Amino acid sequence: MPERPGWTPQDPAFAARVRESFARQSFMATLGAELTRVAPGEVDITLPFRADLTQQNGFLHAGVVTAIVDSACGYAAFTLMPAGVGVLSVEFKVNLLAPAVGERMIARGRVLRAGRTLTVCSGEVAAVSGGEEKPVAAMLATLMRTAPPT
Amino acid sequence: MPERPGWTPQDPAFAARVRESFARQSFMATLGAELTRVAPGEVDITLPFRADLTQQNGFLHAGVVTAIVDSACGYAAFTLMPAGVGVLSVEFKVNLLAPAVGERMIARGRVLRAGRTLTVCSGEVAAVSGGEEKPVAAMLATLMRTAPPT
Amino acid sequence: MPERPGWTPQDPAFAARVRESFARQSFMATLGAELTRVAPGEVDITLPFRADLTQQNGFLHAGVVTAIVDSACGYAAFTLMPAGVGVLSVEFKVNLLAPAVGERMIARGRVLRAGRTLTVCSGEVAAVSGGEEKPVAAMLATLMRTAPPT
Amino acid sequence: MPERPGWTPQDPAFAARVRESFARQSFMATLGAELTRVAPGEVDITLPFRADLTQQNGFLHAGVVTAIVDSACGYAAFTLMPAGVGVLSVEFKVNLLAPAVGERMIARGRVLRAGRTLTVCSGEVAAVSGGEEKPVAAMLATLMRTAPPT
Repeated sequence: MPERPGWTPQDPAFAARVRESFARQSFMATLGAELTRVAPGEVDITLPFRADLTQQNGFLHAGVVTAIVDSACGYAAFTLMPAGVGVLSVEFKVNLLAPAVGERMIARGRVLRAGRTLTVCSGEVAAVSGGEEKPVAAMLATLMRTAPPT
Repeated sequence: MPERPGWTPQDPAFAARVRESFARQSFMATLGAELTRVAPGEVDITLPFRADLTQQNGFLHAGVVTAIVDSACGYAAFTLMPAGVGVLSVEFKVNLLAPAVGERMIARGRVLRAGRTLTVCSGEVAAVSGGEEKPVAAMLATLMRTAPPT
Repeated sequence: MPERPGWTPQDPAFAARVRESFARQSFMATLGAELTRVAPGEVDITLPFRADLTQQNGFLHAGVVTAIVDSACGYAAFTLMPAGVGVLSVEFKVNLLAPAVGERMIARGRVLRAGRTLTVCSGEVAAVSGGEEKPVAAMLATLMRTAPPT
Repeated sequence: MPERPGWTPQDPAFAARVRESFARQSFMATLGAELTRVAPGEVDITLPFRADLTQQNGFLHAGVVTAIVDSACGYAAFTLMPAGVGVLSVEFKVNLLAPAVGERMIARGRVLRAGRTLTVCSGEVAAVSGGEEKPVAAMLATLMRTAPPT
């Protein structure tokens, strides 16, 4: 909520563009995060739990949770942009709903509104353990199309 | 803005509590971040730039910027809490003002309002290069006191 | 997204509590807003368009849009609280997705997470014209249970 | 915090533009709000307390508090824009710091960053009673320049 429309990408090669840009985010490799879904207006990123990414209680640090859902939202926005442009995060808000503990985290970014300059996405992070999901964070984010390409 | 009052800590050992908890945030060590100021209602964290922490354009990833300013805000709140409790981030919003590039980043967390259960902080991240500072992010965050100690 | 669980109210008289508190929000009467749905974890508020509620372009002012979706989120949270307590907004973020014009606005508040002290809600505002809905705003909000009753 | 630079307006007639646009915000007249300061990057709006603007506890409704600080931030951004363009709120986050009660509220909007398309502002609302101020809300907001003029 709000319900999302079905999206039609402007660039049929959107998935390749997303994968190529994700591969250049060295911080995703540092975290051990993987791109696990790329569809029009929808991107998922998966992160296995690691003890060197935690805060003082042994939960994943809020910055780690934010990193994967910010990238998921940014690339969800990017799927709907034309070839030859870049994407940057303008701002986001994150609510931490439960401790980020589990076998792995799945961050899902979804486009709510795609404008010419600005795109608004909602995101969530769920902790997965024993095949069950539990929501750990919700994001509401604004992304911007940039040019020249980035 | 809003202007901040002068704060009086409830626990004279507040700085030791902050340093001990920060030392348990393994993600801060993973990033290479250091605690560079602890005062009542005020905490600074410094992060040298590293290429393995960047996004697709070579700027520090928004998750890295968020991590250091979230910890700075959380520990700023923690300086004013009594002994024997813990602190958790409830939520935050970050505006990215400029690309996070420079020799190092300084994240500053400052308490705006200290309540019994909830504390509100404002944060900023500045990029430092050649002795000059440039603002790169602004945060507005809500932190929560938890018990038993965490 | 995130998906919401089905909620079970603690107080079977939740709807009466919500209606009684809404009736005391004199600003809702000033705006001409009505409570149009009260269910466990879900509250809708409807506002007919009025020219004296607009900003410089003739759209409903962002403060009006925020008012109805903040009340919708607050009362959605309140449906799940026990009898004898109060609810206050801690903070919220609103993205304005499209100009707030139409015959009327429907604000929907939905509980994402219900904790003992804090509740997190997502909200949306849709503009309705000629039987069609268009999203105009998205909210992510934190509400707090207070005592004594308010 | 972050510290704000001194701003130089592009349009020497910025104050007249702000006053003319504010006069077209019919919702500000409905609330009884007045424009009490217009300077480069800085706008204040003052609102006398009125019982028909309150929520269930007799405090000003969060939507009222948001309305005046959103307009203050929007017009603070507008002071730095060139002639012949419009301004719209993209999104904002508000933390409610204390009950909004007092003789009157002063909302202050201040520009943190002025870009070509997007401007970031911080805002505060203070309650004034007996000559003393108490902070009641903090805002962090993103505004957008629009064209053609609005």
